[in-house]
Amino acid sequence: MMRTASQSGEFDRIARYFAPLARSYPEAFGLKDDAAVIEPTLGTKLVVTTDTIVAGIHYVGDEAPELIAAKLLRVNLSDLAAMGATPRAYTLNVALPTEIDDCWLEAFTDGLADDQARFNVVLIGGDSVGTTGPVVLSLTGYGEVPASGAVLRSAAQPGDNVYVSGTIGDGALGLRVVKGHLPGLPERDAAALIARYQKPEPRLGLIRRLAQKSVLAAADISDGLVADLSHIADASGVAMLIRADAVPLSHAARYALNRDTELLATILSGGDDYEVAFCVPSDAEEIVQAIARESGVQVTAIGVVESGSGVRVLEAGGSEIEFQSMGFTHR
Amino acid sequence: MMRTASQSGEFDRIARYFAPLARSYPEAFGLKDDAAVIEPTLGTKLVVTTDTIVAGIHYVGDEAPELIAAKLLRVNLSDLAAMGATPRAYTLNVALPTEIDDCWLEAFTDGLADDQARFNVVLIGGDSVGTTGPVVLSLTGYGEVPASGAVLRSAAQPGDNVYVSGTIGDGALGLRVVKGHLPGLPERDAAALIARYQKPEPRLGLIRRLAQKSVLAAADISDGLVADLSHIADASGVAMLIRADAVPLSHAARYALNRDTELLATILSGGDDYEVAFCVPSDAEEIVQAIARESGVQVTAIGVVESGSGVRVLEAGGSEIEFQSMGFTHR
Repeated sequence: MMRTASQSGEFDRIARYFAPLARSYPEAFGLKDDAAVIEPTLGTKLVVTTDTIVAGIHYVGDEAPELIAAKLLRVNLSDLAAMGATPRAYTLNVALPTEIDDCWLEAFTDGLADDQARFNVVLIGGDSVGTTGPVVLSLTGYGEVPASGAVLRSAAQPGDNVYVSGTIGDGALGLRVVKGHLPGLPERDAAALIARYQKPEPRLGLIRRLAQKSVLAAADISDGLVADLSHIADASGVAMLIRADAVPLSHAARYALNRDTELLATILSGGDDYEVAFCVPSDAEEIVQAIARESGVQVTAIGVVESGSGVRVLEAGGSEIEFQSMGFTHR
Repeated sequence: MMRTASQSGEFDRIARYFAPLARSYPEAFGLKDDAAVIEPTLGTKLVVTTDTIVAGIHYVGDEAPELIAAKLLRVNLSDLAAMGATPRAYTLNVALPTEIDDCWLEAFTDGLADDQARFNVVLIGGDSVGTTGPVVLSLTGYGEVPASGAVLRSAAQPGDNVYVSGTIGDGALGLRVVKGHLPGLPERDAAALIARYQKPEPRLGLIRRLAQKSVLAAADISDGLVADLSHIADASGVAMLIRADAVPLSHAARYALNRDTELLATILSGGDDYEVAFCVPSDAEEIVQAIARESGVQVTAIGVVESGSGVRVLEAGGSEIEFQSMGFTHR
């Protein structure tokens, strides 16, 4: 629990900035006890996911603290979304250098408070310590799935269709815009890509609803579309054939790609999408689209599952794109 | 889940060093999915606790990695012990600078493997990332308590006796020995204190068994005996009167204190004990001692709960010791 006081004042900080985030959860005991209690709703199991981000590596460091908080929480909610879970709570571990002042902490916890309300989750515990290095933030998300289980990566079958939610590549292109590596975009497109990079929208509800109607495999897209599809393919012992021209792009991404076709590699493998990819039997198309409408999320079929192994991506002309780490070649 | 790959090879490291720690837990999915599933045993609730440690702040940095691993796990188990919980699983977030090589990781995960077997817990998820700063390690422990609830700090009542498990002060004195600030102790005493600092023994079972027989408040002693008793007193809205000469000391601590009586402040407020403190009605003495024997742990009555607020510590002569942060004065 929030209790280490290697720096004097750490207890005060916890009481002032973090305890209010736990106020609505009695069994967090005001972040003052040794642990919190969490009891899954009858008929559900708990799902646990966790991510760590480091200033200067996973984010630039000078972002608005509210945005850092929102992204940290949302990347975990995206993992829960891909498991078909309903988010409930989270714990937070922060290692902060002395440069981090109360002003930063106030903005950071304001960002958490906003997203707690938006996504109906609550802080139930954590730890706050000093560090001589950069800010290191770990957030652990807790969600609930039906007792029948979570949606896994390992359930894809040959003959399934492969779908993705939303649009792909915006996060990776947004990072390029932030870094100044993608100049000359119309202001509105640049802003749209940056917003997608800084504040991903976890696709909660979609996979949970789909799991009630169809057998499926799912993963969130955080490492890059091709990498995360490979994780599904590997876990399921299947191959995938993806059509690059079917991958849904935002207006801004389409504009950027038309200007520089080499950006296709960034779009397909750059990561930071926080969309979900999933595989369902090909006869489930109607169900998929009905549930997508119900969830308020666009979903797009981008390929098929085959027997074999590996993920192949075909260009419009039918030639295969070969990915080499972050780049790609035609073959 | 263990999935960030900001450095190439991070996936390999997870597969090689961390995934074996999760092998016995099917619903960790080999640390390859987006999340793990945890389902409390019927009739229990889950308890969650978490701690973060930073190299150079919470440990020196050049310790054997096995010892760092053991302590990180055990300090969380100590929190679970104080809640009356039975440990089940843990997640782990590591931020590692490039100096950390596979050799270090192998020793670190060996240390975890040893303690997993010893304490019957299992790794179910985590994250591994690079950092430009010192090693930052966060461990989140999951345990089970009966549906009737966890043992809290807030249940102490005037008239209760105050007990501690084991002996107090060894951890803080052990740190002094490690730092060379406590020279001239017999080798055996020095080694005993260092061992207590490096490898605390979580007092699992004691509070859980006591909770079945008596009303009690409990906390683990990590910040220092006086500080942690203050947490119980504050949470319960009571005062405590502690007799310094009743506080149980190891042979080594007694020897060190006899040589330098000023060490009493270190012993009573230095922290790193990872014993439990608890308060039970004064008529429960027999039950307490019977359960202590059953648990293989020595417990000692060190004072009483009174109405009021704050913790007062009396010397043998009856004068009060006043604590000023880490020091103390006679008044």
